[in-house]
Amino acid sequence: MQDTTYAYQQLLDFTIQIFKKIGCPDTDAASAAEVLLSADLRGVDSHGVARLTGYVRLWEAKRVNATPQVRVIHETPSTAVVDGDSGLGLVVAPYAMALAIEKARNVGTGWVSVQHSNHYGIAAAHAMKALEHDMIGISMTNASPLVAPTFSTSKMLGTNPICVAAPAGTEPAFVADLATTTAANGKLEILQRKNEAAPLGWVQDAAGLDSTDAGVLKKGGALLPLGGDREHGSHKGYALGAVVDIFSALLSGANYAPWVPPFPAYVPMPDRQPGKGIGHFFGAMRVDAFRPVEAYKRDMDDWIGGFRNATPVKGQHKVLVPGDPERETEAVRRVHGIPLLPAVAADLKALGERLGVVF
Amino acid sequence: MQDTTYAYQQLLDFTIQIFKKIGCPDTDAASAAEVLLSADLRGVDSHGVARLTGYVRLWEAKRVNATPQVRVIHETPSTAVVDGDSGLGLVVAPYAMALAIEKARNVGTGWVSVQHSNHYGIAAAHAMKALEHDMIGISMTNASPLVAPTFSTSKMLGTNPICVAAPAGTEPAFVADLATTTAANGKLEILQRKNEAAPLGWVQDAAGLDSTDAGVLKKGGALLPLGGDREHGSHKGYALGAVVDIFSALLSGANYAPWVPPFPAYVPMPDRQPGKGIGHFFGAMRVDAFRPVEAYKRDMDDWIGGFRNATPVKGQHKVLVPGDPERETEAVRRVHGIPLLPAVAADLKALGERLGVVF
Repeated sequence: MQDTTYAYQQLLDFTIQIFKKIGCPDTDAASAAEVLLSADLRGVDSHGVARLTGYVRLWEAKRVNATPQVRVIHETPSTAVVDGDSGLGLVVAPYAMALAIEKARNVGTGWVSVQHSNHYGIAAAHAMKALEHDMIGISMTNASPLVAPTFSTSKMLGTNPICVAAPAGTEPAFVADLATTTAANGKLEILQRKNEAAPLGWVQDAAGLDSTDAGVLKKGGALLPLGGDREHGSHKGYALGAVVDIFSALLSGANYAPWVPPFPAYVPMPDRQPGKGIGHFFGAMRVDAFRPVEAYKRDMDDWIGGFRNATPVKGQHKVLVPGDPERETEAVRRVHGIPLLPAVAADLKALGERLGVVF
Repeated sequence: MQDTTYAYQQLLDFTIQIFKKIGCPDTDAASAAEVLLSADLRGVDSHGVARLTGYVRLWEAKRVNATPQVRVIHETPSTAVVDGDSGLGLVVAPYAMALAIEKARNVGTGWVSVQHSNHYGIAAAHAMKALEHDMIGISMTNASPLVAPTFSTSKMLGTNPICVAAPAGTEPAFVADLATTTAANGKLEILQRKNEAAPLGWVQDAAGLDSTDAGVLKKGGALLPLGGDREHGSHKGYALGAVVDIFSALLSGANYAPWVPPFPAYVPMPDRQPGKGIGHFFGAMRVDAFRPVEAYKRDMDDWIGGFRNATPVKGQHKVLVPGDPERETEAVRRVHGIPLLPAVAADLKALGERLGVVF
């Protein structure tokens, strides 16, 4: 079967209705749907509407609170800790990012660590909120353990993504959004569906040996940190994933390391909960807290132009700037719609029928 | 010839005398020597006293100012930009890091971007200054272009390191210090001296093809971003190196991308100088701006213990926590001294004779 394409607005409306059905207030439902769908627009299909049923299942399992009292539990002029009250990360994260932006407006930068939250969609959705304020935005989150540290067979960290979004002038913004692993788990899932092998350096088996089995995570294997192996710097990817965990959970009081709750509702909770929920970390830095915005933007445009004009290797059309592929996908999908796999469309239809929303 | 081992204090005193000879004020000479030697203590031999002659040559070429008027040129409660006045990075960076710590004391966090500086030694030397204040320290710097972005043959970024240092309780601090490349340039230099090949994934040749030639950088080749190739996430290493450049130079007004001045004084300056000198970026976050220090430290000790107790792969003794190898090296070298290659010792002896300091 072929993918069918759906208009952004159609999927957005459907998603809003679903979030309302599980009890989200109108503004939360709209905010959560916008964050979720930003993944589909940007081509990160694994983190978009394909996960909607997963979020509903978490609510059904009483792991998500549809009417959380999200609140600040500690703060200084440039920092805060937010308690997400077990709300959707898609709702908690925009609250926390807005707070970081407000603090940056007041004292130059704002830094917010979040506990007691759930999965927050794509990191870029939050970091990019800073751009319209002429601020640099930063977003990261921990996640359930799939990644083995260098020299280990134990799954100790999530794919723990980092996003940094920096405004430019006439050029589009710089947006780096990266899991701290060689490859995101979504890519393995795609290979599994196609029954294809994974490249060496993406995963290891239960004994910690090289593997090309895209399904190895179910057999005790693990994703590898960015770098792949020690000789190619996997200790660096491991260290970066660890930094994300420390900022997101150790500074907030969320669960950390192998004790971060899983996204699939059918996976049992970890044997131990040293903190509350999952953790995120957000930052906003006002450009003019450092330099006049005009001077910065002139230099950013020049910087981006430098990379665009770099010499491509033979066979490549051009050198990309972080954020280029996602922005190009979004431009196409806003006009031509978002393609969904038949299985995803069927899943959404079933979800709609179950909750009384027409897909 | 065997390496000879020198007492830390002996090398420190020698380095202080050399910096005084080129005109550094006493306190600057002491501070610069301490930063430089911290690399030797931690086992990062490529960035320590082996570079002392290089710093002197930069001064002789009038690219370094031994008596800089380091000053704040812009600030908000949580941010500042520092003009290093072409001083040694070893002097400018401690000033900027101290300022970040002071701002964190006042408003929770402090963030300082630096222009018009020079090479600052190892990133960890600066980030770790935050630890004694129960703060998380962050340090990064741009550097002269050796790294090709994914899909490019142009050298556009330096090895642009990032260090994050986070305090713990009874456990030693977490210290992640990493170049955003597969391998640091110092490791290539060691292979060249031994006439050995580099592993695939470290470098590419002038055409952008895989290479194992450790000397390929002199032949138009380039270091590769962390990840190595696109399939293994080199676009992520490229993005991280780019973030370091943006924070260090675009926020401060330093030179960026391929226009960052080189460390060797014999290498001509780039054809263009869009900013001033090289750039650094420093951050300090007070732990108690987020959570009570006791709760954080209890969790950090538990977190570190979790990784120490993770299962090692067969043949490995244990799983390491970022910072472990360097700390263990420092413990040994503080007692048993710092080994120097015969060539390095001879170079220092010649430097001492030239400037009238006994080695």
